Amino acid sequence: MKHYALGLDYGTNSVRCVVVDLSDGCEIATAVFDYPSGKQGILLDASDPNLARQHPADYIKGLESVVPSALEQARDATPDFDGRGVVGIGVDTTGSTPLPVDAQGNPLGLNPEFADNLNAMAWLWKDHTSHAEADRITAYAARERPQYLAKCGGVYSSEWFWSKIWHCLNVDPVVFDAADGFVELCDYIPALLTGTTDRRFMARSICAAGHKAMYCDEWGGLPDKTFLDGLDPALGRLRGHLYERAVTSDQAAGMLTHEWADKLGLPAGIPVAVGALDAHMGAVGAGIREGVLVKILGTSTCDLLVIPADRQLADIPGVCGIVKGSVLPDYYAIEAGQSAVGDIFLWLLHCLAPDTGGVPDGERFRRLGEEAARQKPGEHGLLALDWNNGNRTVLTDVRLGGLLLGQTLRTELHEVYRALVEATAFGGLTIMRRIEQYGVPIREVVNCGGLAVKNPFLMQIYADISGRPMKVARSDQTCAVGAAIYGAVVAGAEAGGYDRIAAAQDVMCSVRERVYTPIAGNAAVYARLYELYRTLHDAFGTRDWQGNLFSIMKDLIALREQQRG
Amino acid sequence: MKHYALGLDYGTNSVRCVVVDLSDGCEIATAVFDYPSGKQGILLDASDPNLARQHPADYIKGLESVVPSALEQARDATPDFDGRGVVGIGVDTTGSTPLPVDAQGNPLGLNPEFADNLNAMAWLWKDHTSHAEADRITAYAARERPQYLAKCGGVYSSEWFWSKIWHCLNVDPVVFDAADGFVELCDYIPALLTGTTDRRFMARSICAAGHKAMYCDEWGGLPDKTFLDGLDPALGRLRGHLYERAVTSDQAAGMLTHEWADKLGLPAGIPVAVGALDAHMGAVGAGIREGVLVKILGTSTCDLLVIPADRQLADIPGVCGIVKGSVLPDYYAIEAGQSAVGDIFLWLLHCLAPDTGGVPDGERFRRLGEEAARQKPGEHGLLALDWNNGNRTVLTDVRLGGLLLGQTLRTELHEVYRALVEATAFGGLTIMRRIEQYGVPIREVVNCGGLAVKNPFLMQIYADISGRPMKVARSDQTCAVGAAIYGAVVAGAEAGGYDRIAAAQDVMCSVRERVYTPIAGNAAVYARLYELYRTLHDAFGTRDWQGNLFSIMKDLIALREQQRG
Repeated sequence: MKHYALGLDYGTNSVRCVVVDLSDGCEIATAVFDYPSGKQGILLDASDPNLARQHPADYIKGLESVVPSALEQARDATPDFDGRGVVGIGVDTTGSTPLPVDAQGNPLGLNPEFADNLNAMAWLWKDHTSHAEADRITAYAARERPQYLAKCGGVYSSEWFWSKIWHCLNVDPVVFDAADGFVELCDYIPALLTGTTDRRFMARSICAAGHKAMYCDEWGGLPDKTFLDGLDPALGRLRGHLYERAVTSDQAAGMLTHEWADKLGLPAGIPVAVGALDAHMGAVGAGIREGVLVKILGTSTCDLLVIPADRQLADIPGVCGIVKGSVLPDYYAIEAGQSAVGDIFLWLLHCLAPDTGGVPDGERFRRLGEEAARQKPGEHGLLALDWNNGNRTVLTDVRLGGLLLGQTLRTELHEVYRALVEATAFGGLTIMRRIEQYGVPIREVVNCGGLAVKNPFLMQIYADISGRPMKVARSDQTCAVGAAIYGAVVAGAEAGGYDRIAAAQDVMCSVRERVYTPIAGNAAVYARLYELYRTLHDAFGTRDWQGNLFSIMKDLIALREQQRG
Repeated sequence: MKHYALGLDYGTNSVRCVVVDLSDGCEIATAVFDYPSGKQGILLDASDPNLARQHPADYIKGLESVVPSALEQARDATPDFDGRGVVGIGVDTTGSTPLPVDAQGNPLGLNPEFADNLNAMAWLWKDHTSHAEADRITAYAARERPQYLAKCGGVYSSEWFWSKIWHCLNVDPVVFDAADGFVELCDYIPALLTGTTDRRFMARSICAAGHKAMYCDEWGGLPDKTFLDGLDPALGRLRGHLYERAVTSDQAAGMLTHEWADKLGLPAGIPVAVGALDAHMGAVGAGIREGVLVKILGTSTCDLLVIPADRQLADIPGVCGIVKGSVLPDYYAIEAGQSAVGDIFLWLLHCLAPDTGGVPDGERFRRLGEEAARQKPGEHGLLALDWNNGNRTVLTDVRLGGLLLGQTLRTELHEVYRALVEATAFGGLTIMRRIEQYGVPIREVVNCGGLAVKNPFLMQIYADISGRPMKVARSDQTCAVGAAIYGAVVAGAEAGGYDRIAAAQDVMCSVRERVYTPIAGNAAVYARLYELYRTLHDAFGTRDWQGNLFSIMKDLIALREQQRG
C-alpha cells in the first residue's frame, strides 16, 4: 500500500487540504473551503478599520469539508488510492490568531451567549485594534526586559498574542473573564483532531509561542509572571492558564481521535504534528535550508531564513522574530515580512478603482501587468511606499499609511499598479539588506505563494529590483506541503513516512524551470529609484531622519524624461 | 429696438458664445462648440506628457458655428430679438496660447505645409514642454532684470509666451523661421473679426501681454532687446515683429468686417473689444471690485483681486501676476491660481479609476460627493497635495507631482476624492493667506466656473477649509458675460451699450441665493489638517524646509480615530 500525508493549511480567507504521495511528493488532491462568515471570511467592524476577526465555526466547517473532499478527489484521480494509507497529518494556520476558550478548550465564539460578540471570536493575525497595548508592551519591555524585545526586532506588534489578549481585557473584561485561557489557532486545530483541547494535554507550537508570545527557552518559556503583572495582574494570573513548554512540529500533538477519523474518513490513531504558522510551514514546503531565503508572497509576505542553532547570531534590529526551532528543529529561524503585498494590489482594484464592468480580478491583473510591463523602469514617474497596512520589517510600525507620489494628470491605473508592485519590491529589498548587513548571507531566493505562481510581471520586477534571480517553488501550496512534510515526519519512516525533514524535503520540494533573472539595463535605474524610496522610507518612517524632500519630485520627473527618451 | 452684446469665450475644450440683453443682463442665448481635433480639442504627443497644442482651424470653425447658433437660439427664445440690436462684441480666450503666424497674420498651422507639425499649431496654455526655457529665463532675469520677475511672482512659467516661443526656436527652427511673428489667441480672434491680422494694425491685449509676456509700461513695454538678445539673438530680432503697446479691453480692436458680419449674421461695423484672458474676463463677469476675490473654478483655477492703481502695492512672492488694467482699467489686477483642480478630479475618474460600466461622469461625481459628504473631516485619514499639474501659486514650480498619503487597505474611491477636493481647498487657502499677508484684504469670495455651479460638496469644503462664506456668481458663464460687458463698453452708452464697466456690472452681475457658510465644528479639524498640508507642501516644495515627517502619518491616524469616535 502507498503512503500519504495530509497537510491542512488555514489561511486568511480559506482552509485547504492537500494529500501528498510520500513516494514521489506528488500532490494528488487538493480541496479548498472558503470561510462563509463576514467579508471573505473576515468579521469586520465598519467603525474600526483595525478590527479583523474570524468565526471559529468556520474553522470546523472547513475541516469537515476539505478533508473528505480531498480524499474523494484522491480516489477519483488515483485508482489505487486508499485512505488507510494516510500516515500522518500536519497543520499550519495564520497567526498570531488567538481564540478565547473555556475550561474544556472550546472557543467562546461557539457559545451562544457570545454569538454576537466579536471579542469572543478568533482575533485574526491582521487585527490591529491593540496598537495602544502593543506600544505599551514595547515601552515596558524596553525598560524591564530588553532581552524579550531583542528577539522580535525591538518592537512588540499589535498583531501578536499579548497585545491582543490585553486589548481584550481592556475593552471587554466580560469575555476576558469568561475565558479560561487563550489558544493559538495553530494549537487549537491539532488539539481538536487529537482530543486534547484540555489545556493540561494540549501541545503548544514553538513557532507561535516564540514568534508571537515572547516565549523562549532561554528565559524559561513565556514572559515571567512579574513582568506580566506589571502590565496587568490579570495577565499575570492568566499565565498559569497557558503553558510551560512549547515544542517543535516534528513532535506529535497527539493521535487522531476515532470521532474525527470517522467524520473525515481517515484511520484513527495516526499522529497529528504540532501545528505551526503558515509561513513557517510554507518555507519548509518551499525547500528552505541554510542560505536560502524563502519569500512567501500572498496578501502579506513572510521572508524566512534558517541558520544552524550552534552558530553565533546577533539580534537584528527591525526583524520580526528569531526563534529556535520554529521552521526546522535545531535551526534558528529568522522571520521578516511585509504587512501587505497582494492586499495592496487587491485594494487598488477593489477599493480605489472598482469596475462595474464585471471583468474578473485575474483578468484585470493580467491586463494591467501586460500594460505596465511595456514601460521602462521610472517611465511612470511614480514612487510609492508599501505601507497601506503598516510596516512590519524593518520599521515594525503599524501606525503608518500608504503613499503615492509623482502622479500627473495622465497617470494611468496600470502605472500606479506598477509603482505599487515596485514599492513592495523595494520593501523586500530593504529587508534583505538589513539581514545581510547582520552577517546572514542570502545565496538563493525561492518564492512561493499565489503571487509567485500567478504573476510573472511581479516576479520580473522583484528580480530587477533585488538584482537576484527569483526562483519559484514547484508547489502551488507550499504551506500545506510543509504541513504534510511534518505529518510524514511525525509518522516516521517505519510507518511509511520520514525520519528527517531534509529527507522528506528532498522528495517533496523542488523549484520550477522558469527562473526570473535580473535584466541588466534596469538595475541602474532601480538603484536610483531605491535611493528615493529609502529617502521617503526614512523621512516618514524614522525619528532620526533630518532633511528636505525638494529634489524627490524633480528627480522622478528627470528620470521619467530620461526613460521616455 | 433692444440692444445686445456678444461674449465669445474660447476655453480649453470648446468655444462658447452668449448673447446678453443689455437692458436687464439676461443671457438670452448660449451656444457651445467642442473643438473637433485631438483629444477633447487638445493635440497630444504620446511620448511627451508636457505637450498640449490646438489646431487653429478649430477656433475658426468654432466661430462660424457658435455665433450663428447663438443668434438663432436668441430668435427662437425671444420673439422680438433682432440681430441688428447687437452693439458690440467682446472676446476672451485661454492663454498664454501663442500661435506662430505668417506676415499676413495667418496661423502657420493652417498652411498645408505645416499640417502635420504640432509646433506650427497653437501652443495651449497648459503646454509645459518649455520648462527648461522657463527655468533659464527665470535664472537670467533674476540676474539681469529682477524687476521683470517681481511682477510675476518671482518665477517665469513654462506656460507663458517667451518660454514657448523660445522652445519653438530650440526644437523647431524651421517653424520659428517660417513665422513672421507670434500672436496670442486673445489677440488673434478680434484681429480676425476686424480684419486687422496684419501686425501693424493688430491691437494687443494688456492682459495677455502683462501677465504672460513680461510687458509693462514701467519699462517701456515688452522686455528690452538687449535682454532678449541675451536669451537668443533670434528672440531679440523677433521683438521688432511683435508690438510696442498693449491696451485695455475697454478699447476697440476694430470694427467687424463685412465679410465676418455676413458670415455670422451680425451688423457690420460694430466694435470688437480688445481681447483678454478668460479668467480675467470671468472675474469681470462675476462682479469683481475692490475687496472681492473671484475664484474661477474649472479644470484649473484662477484667483483674481483688484486694487486701485493709485494705491501702494508690494510685489507678492509666488503670485503669478500683477498687471495694471488687465481686469479693470485703472486697477491693478492680482492674479494667482492652481494649475489643476477640476482636472485632478477628472484624472481620478478617467485615468485612475476608469469604469467600464458606462455611468456618466456627472453621475459618478454626484455619487462620490454624496458618499464623501457623509464623512467627517479627517475621518478618511488621508492627505493629498494638489500638484498633479505642478503648482502655479505660491510655489510657481511645474516640476512637481501629485501626492497622496495615509491610504490603508480599506481606503475607498470616495475618500480619495474627498482628500483631493480638500487638497485643492488647502491650495486655495495657501494663496489667500499669501495675498492677505502682503496687505491686500479679502472681504468677500465669489466663485464661478463649472465646479462652483455644479459641485455643492466641493463648495462646502471650500467654505469649511477657508473659514469664509463662499458665494457663487449667478451666471454659468461669467467669462463670456465678462467679454460681453466689454463688448457693451466699447459700444458705449450712445449706441445702447455702457460707458463704464461698473455700470454694466451693476446690470449684468449678481450672486446666487445659496451661500456656503463654514460649519463651525469642522474648522478646528481642518486647521490641524492644514498644518500637515503645509508641512508636506514645504517639505516637497521648498528648498529651505528642514525637518522630519515621522509624525505626519501618526497624526492622520490619530485624527481619523478621533473623528470616527
